Amino acid sequence: MSNHPPRIAPPKIACIGSGVIGGGWAARFLLNGFDVSVYDPSPDAKATTERILANARRALAALTPAPLPQEGKLSFAASLEDAVAGAGLVQESVPERLDLKLSVLAAVEAACPSDALIASSTSGFLPSTLQAGLRHPERLLIAHPYNPVYLLPLVELVPGGRTTAKAIERASALYRRTGMEPVVLEKEIDAFVGDRLLEALWREALWLVRDGIATVEQIDDIIRYSFGLRWAQMGLFQTYRIAGGPAGMRHFLAQFGPALQWPWTKLTDVPDLDDALIDRIAGQSDAQNEGLSIRDLETIRDDNLVAILRALSRQRHGAGWGAGALLNSYAARLEAEAVPAERSSGVLRLLDARVIPEWIDYNGHMTEHRYLDLFGQTTDRLLAHIGVDAAYLGAGHSYYTVETHIMHRAEAKAGEALHVETRLLSFDAKRIHLFHSLKREETELASAEQMLLHVDTGAGKAVAAPAAILSALERIVTAQAGLPMPVAAGRHVGQRG
Amino acid sequence: MSNHPPRIAPPKIACIGSGVIGGGWAARFLLNGFDVSVYDPSPDAKATTERILANARRALAALTPAPLPQEGKLSFAASLEDAVAGAGLVQESVPERLDLKLSVLAAVEAACPSDALIASSTSGFLPSTLQAGLRHPERLLIAHPYNPVYLLPLVELVPGGRTTAKAIERASALYRRTGMEPVVLEKEIDAFVGDRLLEALWREALWLVRDGIATVEQIDDIIRYSFGLRWAQMGLFQTYRIAGGPAGMRHFLAQFGPALQWPWTKLTDVPDLDDALIDRIAGQSDAQNEGLSIRDLETIRDDNLVAILRALSRQRHGAGWGAGALLNSYAARLEAEAVPAERSSGVLRLLDARVIPEWIDYNGHMTEHRYLDLFGQTTDRLLAHIGVDAAYLGAGHSYYTVETHIMHRAEAKAGEALHVETRLLSFDAKRIHLFHSLKREETELASAEQMLLHVDTGAGKAVAAPAAILSALERIVTAQAGLPMPVAAGRHVGQRG
Repeated sequence: MSNHPPRIAPPKIACIGSGVIGGGWAARFLLNGFDVSVYDPSPDAKATTERILANARRALAALTPAPLPQEGKLSFAASLEDAVAGAGLVQESVPERLDLKLSVLAAVEAACPSDALIASSTSGFLPSTLQAGLRHPERLLIAHPYNPVYLLPLVELVPGGRTTAKAIERASALYRRTGMEPVVLEKEIDAFVGDRLLEALWREALWLVRDGIATVEQIDDIIRYSFGLRWAQMGLFQTYRIAGGPAGMRHFLAQFGPALQWPWTKLTDVPDLDDALIDRIAGQSDAQNEGLSIRDLETIRDDNLVAILRALSRQRHGAGWGAGALLNSYAARLEAEAVPAERSSGVLRLLDARVIPEWIDYNGHMTEHRYLDLFGQTTDRLLAHIGVDAAYLGAGHSYYTVETHIMHRAEAKAGEALHVETRLLSFDAKRIHLFHSLKREETELASAEQMLLHVDTGAGKAVAAPAAILSALERIVTAQAGLPMPVAAGRHVGQRG
Repeated sequence: MSNHPPRIAPPKIACIGSGVIGGGWAARFLLNGFDVSVYDPSPDAKATTERILANARRALAALTPAPLPQEGKLSFAASLEDAVAGAGLVQESVPERLDLKLSVLAAVEAACPSDALIASSTSGFLPSTLQAGLRHPERLLIAHPYNPVYLLPLVELVPGGRTTAKAIERASALYRRTGMEPVVLEKEIDAFVGDRLLEALWREALWLVRDGIATVEQIDDIIRYSFGLRWAQMGLFQTYRIAGGPAGMRHFLAQFGPALQWPWTKLTDVPDLDDALIDRIAGQSDAQNEGLSIRDLETIRDDNLVAILRALSRQRHGAGWGAGALLNSYAARLEAEAVPAERSSGVLRLLDARVIPEWIDYNGHMTEHRYLDLFGQTTDRLLAHIGVDAAYLGAGHSYYTVETHIMHRAEAKAGEALHVETRLLSFDAKRIHLFHSLKREETELASAEQMLLHVDTGAGKAVAAPAAILSALERIVTAQAGLPMPVAAGRHVGQRG
């Protein structure tokens, strides 16, 4: 229904050097539809590239449900000359030795098309140094990525003294096509920006380990339970702007400026935080946060942190990772300490939950599929209750839902405490027919009538459940025998009354 | 169903100083069921605390659907003495001036119970310095949190020379009860660990801004699009262990050790990376990663990064934030560039999606509620197609789903390309009756029959839709007039055939 502009065929990319960085580049380009020719004399080159490519395929397939481009063609060239022939971009990622980089770049230039871009992945050499020996230095630039290259969106672009604006523009467009975001630096400096920041922190960390202040594990935990979480979503300056409170960046600088004179790092070269620097930082910070009050930033930060913590809590099959594992322990303790609800006779109350904002849709209510999520979790608890646990699943049988009928009667809003009451309507050797009622106190908000089928998961077909499961089901049916049939059971969509 | 151990009433907490840090402490304790008495002579103290508490309530309610503890009681004491009377823990968070800290701590000790813990939130002073003047120095420790205190789980605990192990143990248990994770340092050092790392990076960042290398916004983007994402889930050393490849930490140190001698930061004090230090780091890194191969770590890292990027992409009502906004632009471009599918006459094909691993359940198939998620997204697109867009919603009308019947016919697996075909079965002034079919190529995996009701969202009741919407519906019904009725329509759960 939208117009599709004619797509320009993506140029061929030459990747010279295929270690962790070069292989990461090859993967990013390939998965975004570029043909890639790799040259690396190392005997491991092919295996490394294939391994990284496998990781990258897995990651990109998980990143978005959007349709992925047709993968480009990967080839391993027998020589550097073969690799760069006909390339639109040559991405150099050989080891960090200046003599090696210079000789490789000279060989690249001798064999590549005259209008090919040449980008170096160097972590530290100046672009002007690298372009010194070239006949066409105007098309050389630094394009410095971060590992894993196929997932992290940053590429630092650094022009040398003789790089043209046109070359930076062409390179930016190419990298953007792979989902990257170029940050273009105006001035060249050893190690550019990201690696300078990393190097400063790395040196301090080495001192801390050397002096026996903390172990590498303690340092890592300190990072990932605190400022690492902040920096996944806001950088250093935006975070500190919030810490300054409503008075913002200037207040923060006034408050924490004195610490620069204190012995707070082993790294002793201290910038002078004079009025000119304060003005520059405060002005740039105002520009960065135009239209966002401190209150806005606090809300955005907190929402982001919550989302990251929740995302990490679902990792590793729900066990969580890092701060997400901590969140799971905390939530499990809250569950265990909650006052158990009163149960009416026979009714199973297997799930209690509070509606979180993540579940709310554009109408301001809990979104449709979260109802089914809560009903599905309740079904899982019922199954665990009758003996369908991890061991049972591992042994090759499970119950699959084959049919669900949901009735919505009222809306659920963020913060409301809900619970699900479950009725077992009937069962036979292969089937369970159940009815869930989602309630806010005594008010039913929605119901779900479900039919489950007992399956042999290997064979993929319905089979009779074992006696132990059937007895457990029988006990529930007996306990619920006195309860009336739910009025919403047995309906079809649109049925009146 | 679980046993509930008798819960010990949480002790009263005294918060002395209620700026961003003190107020954050008060909020964390209150929301975890502790009574808190705040003392701060500033006229803003009450307003600041209330504002932070409001943020914290909002954040904690979003963090987990688990039942939250009963909030503790907040009081503002008229004097420091009133605040600390009867407290089990006194949390001192006054400004970073040594004379002030010492006099406040002396006053605290004079008035608090003899067995109360005294914890300072200082960012830099040594615990031995702070305990020097106390009569009972054994119960003083540093407990240094990170802003926002109510969300970030890290607390650095630092004992002074005279702090007892018992005091550290009692404090650890208390902070754990609030969902925090204590990292206990063995040796005291100015600024401890987290702030030393931050300070090193901050100084480097100030140089970069001062020298005009990058703006504060560029520095922030460089952080949040690269290593900030990594550090939300693994710290410095674990990340570099992966970068070392299968050879691990020793290989990484051999490769990047030389950079320590290069002019890569303004901060020039360089640790000597001798054999002893290499052995220590490699040994601690082995201990940290016991049982995890480099391949394992790569997979964990990539899964975490994908989850963080996806979490950030859903922020700000789906527009995304930071690297999540970049992901949304990338996915939107992939959608736009995808080759449009062939459509059979009259059938609406409104949604194409690939199954991502996040949607897979313990049975290895797409989980139940993701079917309804895809059907719900399709319904949203149908509504947009007939004119129910943001402006329409903003003007106070919408369609709500009142009933859904789902039939499952086959399972969807990770990586499969699915699409939804939609039939409009009937409509009247208030209702839309539709039928979605989820397909993998020509195979139907599931269907959803739905009834939607046109509502006045303010009044919360069904009303007739306007003529423009009804005409749009009429056009679809006309175009689909020749199509047969879906066999699964009109069924109730358990109906045979």
